[in-house]
Amino acid sequence: MTDALHFEDLEVGEVRRFGRYEVTREEVIAFASKYDPQPFHLDDEAAAKTFFGRIAASGWHTCAMMMAMLVEQDKVEARAALGGLGMDELRWLRPVYPGDVLSCETKLLEKTRSRSKPHMGTLRARMTVFNQDGQRVLTMIAISLIAVRDASA
Amino acid sequence: MTDALHFEDLEVGEVRRFGRYEVTREEVIAFASKYDPQPFHLDDEAAAKTFFGRIAASGWHTCAMMMAMLVEQDKVEARAALGGLGMDELRWLRPVYPGDVLSCETKLLEKTRSRSKPHMGTLRARMTVFNQDGQRVLTMIAISLIAVRDASA
Repeated sequence: MTDALHFEDLEVGEVRRFGRYEVTREEVIAFASKYDPQPFHLDDEAAAKTFFGRIAASGWHTCAMMMAMLVEQDKVEARAALGGLGMDELRWLRPVYPGDVLSCETKLLEKTRSRSKPHMGTLRARMTVFNQDGQRVLTMIAISLIAVRDASA
Repeated sequence: MTDALHFEDLEVGEVRRFGRYEVTREEVIAFASKYDPQPFHLDDEAAAKTFFGRIAASGWHTCAMMMAMLVEQDKVEARAALGGLGMDELRWLRPVYPGDVLSCETKLLEKTRSRSKPHMGTLRARMTVFNQDGQRVLTMIAISLIAVRDASA
């Protein structure tokens, strides 16, 4: 973890773009069958009668695909992450359809050193998932913990 | 949908308890392998060196399991739901481990009739996921749309 980005290395305001996730029909149906078996996630005919128009991914599936891109990105640029605490203002802005290609953007909004635990800090980052047309499909503010490199500083 | 619960049928403050989801090791690893392949979700030895202590479910997996319980509950007591808009204040409060048995609670916090679309309203509901010891593992405020039974009222 010595080469990973630590609390001190991150600058508020910095933006990163990364990731590429191809959404397949098989995966949309597999995820929804297990975790969100509503007709508009499983069946084109049923979806046609709804706002979606055709099979769309479960919103939780989109969150999971975002996470997959984040973990993949961590191989490129590792962070001394200590875990996720939660998400604020999560919004599903547009449907995600089979055939879509997703990507991610992160923007660091805030970083706060822990008073009680000097070896860690909290990050608040705006996460955005885009489709292949550059449209935002999902946004949220991720709250996570990261290690401080020099806890005595 | 005529028998489903509509906007008018729901009372602010009402609480529902439901669901039972057995978390298996196989499923924790399958979900994490695809969407959140961090060592503490995949490997006991790696997890032992972290806060988790042993393999724990991805936080997004816990969200997905909550969703599965919600959709299952909709078979028992259907709602004229028109889709989810998002989540506020999502917090992973405790790890979820293989062998845990999860359940859900919902509490309706607020309902607001749409001004521009009189056939729908917005709900804000506190969602809580518990483990078998009654400990809260996940909370959030779900924001969703529901049909109004009598749009002319």
